[in-house]
Amino acid sequence: MIIRLARNSGFCFGVKRAINIAQETAGKFKNAVTLGPIIHNPQMVNRLKADGVGYVDSVDEIVDEAVIIRSHGITKETSEELSELNIPIIDATCPYVSKTQMVGRKLSEEGYDVIILGDYRHPEVIALQSYVPGNVIVIDEDSDLSDKSFNKAGLICQTTQSLEKLVKVVGMLIPISKELRIINTICNATNVRQESTAKLAKNSELMFVIGGKNSSNTKMLARISSQYCKTVHIETADEIDRIFIKDLQRIGLTAGASTPDWIILEVYNKIIEISESNLPRAINIEDISAY
Amino acid sequence: MIIRLARNSGFCFGVKRAINIAQETAGKFKNAVTLGPIIHNPQMVNRLKADGVGYVDSVDEIVDEAVIIRSHGITKETSEELSELNIPIIDATCPYVSKTQMVGRKLSEEGYDVIILGDYRHPEVIALQSYVPGNVIVIDEDSDLSDKSFNKAGLICQTTQSLEKLVKVVGMLIPISKELRIINTICNATNVRQESTAKLAKNSELMFVIGGKNSSNTKMLARISSQYCKTVHIETADEIDRIFIKDLQRIGLTAGASTPDWIILEVYNKIIEISESNLPRAINIEDISAY
Repeated sequence: MIIRLARNSGFCFGVKRAINIAQETAGKFKNAVTLGPIIHNPQMVNRLKADGVGYVDSVDEIVDEAVIIRSHGITKETSEELSELNIPIIDATCPYVSKTQMVGRKLSEEGYDVIILGDYRHPEVIALQSYVPGNVIVIDEDSDLSDKSFNKAGLICQTTQSLEKLVKVVGMLIPISKELRIINTICNATNVRQESTAKLAKNSELMFVIGGKNSSNTKMLARISSQYCKTVHIETADEIDRIFIKDLQRIGLTAGASTPDWIILEVYNKIIEISESNLPRAINIEDISAY
Repeated sequence: MIIRLARNSGFCFGVKRAINIAQETAGKFKNAVTLGPIIHNPQMVNRLKADGVGYVDSVDEIVDEAVIIRSHGITKETSEELSELNIPIIDATCPYVSKTQMVGRKLSEEGYDVIILGDYRHPEVIALQSYVPGNVIVIDEDSDLSDKSFNKAGLICQTTQSLEKLVKVVGMLIPISKELRIINTICNATNVRQESTAKLAKNSELMFVIGGKNSSNTKMLARISSQYCKTVHIETADEIDRIFIKDLQRIGLTAGASTPDWIILEVYNKIIEISESNLPRAINIEDISAY
């Protein structure tokens, strides 16, 4: 039996990087905090807390030796408040998010009205706006733009937006803009994860798609996978039954964006445990990556 | 009875301007030519010829005292060939077309791959391409872009393209472009003509829409007008019958993009002639404009 993990699955680059930075920070300071939870996964947050990295919701609450900025980034104003604390600031802002902030500022300095495609309530978007010195608005495909018109409009995107939404809002902006400059700042992690899942599913007899039952990106992975082979959407290893894998030779694993690696590893080990195979358990996550 | 002409009808600004320039030129030189027919309307071309402004298809054929560049513009190479003739060159290139050429050159100089939305066989587009020093391609909504990708793409448009086509090709370009800068160089003459027709039709009992029976822009005006009042599509004054206008108080006129003013005026005079009204005939075209 071969068990393979989709080459791109689970956390995106920016989240993995932020968690690594937080874990390194835990080794350097007795206590540190992230400003807001590092990701929306309670297990991951608890594990970090056990390592000595808790989280606070506002700058006022910080009484620790160091503060970590999570992957979404923070507003310019919050950044200034942090500086006044005179403690080490460890910046784990995703480099793609930082780049979008830089692009927004540059467009504004070049005389563009800056338009952000995104969710105005999302921390990444709130932070992004703060780096644009001039006119800036946040829109999505449901926005009413009937009273708007632009001479020079510069459009950037929250990194997790979809290409379909970008195409829609551009269709809304073209009739009201003399010049429209679109810098596509959408991160392709979601696309790459989906393509990687499809590729592995084509070469598997069964796929386990690991992630929250309510997670829309995980459900999408399951839908894609099921076009190519038998697919089971699970949250944890406990859901795997011997009956699923009986007589199978090629099993594939993939995971949604908020599924930590160790949950994937538990699934891997459970499959080994209940199969007749003698494959080694607790193998490193890198060693099972193939597609 | 009131006869009113749609405020924006017939020739667009660029064509009217080119014809005026050609007529002025006729007064200054014994013989002059345009490079290519001034517009695709044989009556207009013949009238100019009678005034002493003929046309040639290529630079080699020019034996005249002066040459007029028509509203579409000419290529950079043709412009250089004309310079070598050492005769006055009268430039009637539409200012909107010249602006598009300037924008294309500037985008190219700023490192953009230049994409032109347009018909690659149209003289305006052929000329436009010649002013772009770097990479340039011409596309429309049926183009196959599957093997293309752009780091910095700059999109400009043939002035007579529609907004719908622009939205379509932008939808095709977004997934393959990191940056897409759209300078909307579409001239709004067509839109304005249609809006003007609708406005007059709403205030008329009958509309005469004047222009070639095969002219797609004229047919579109007739379709729009017929949503609001009884509408008759005619090519010349001869087609007007007394029966059409019997007992009517408010008659509207509009005309397609290739219909010269004097044909509109003939229609006006014919209506006066066959009506019982005592309105003055051969009134100036400006005097009958109301909407």
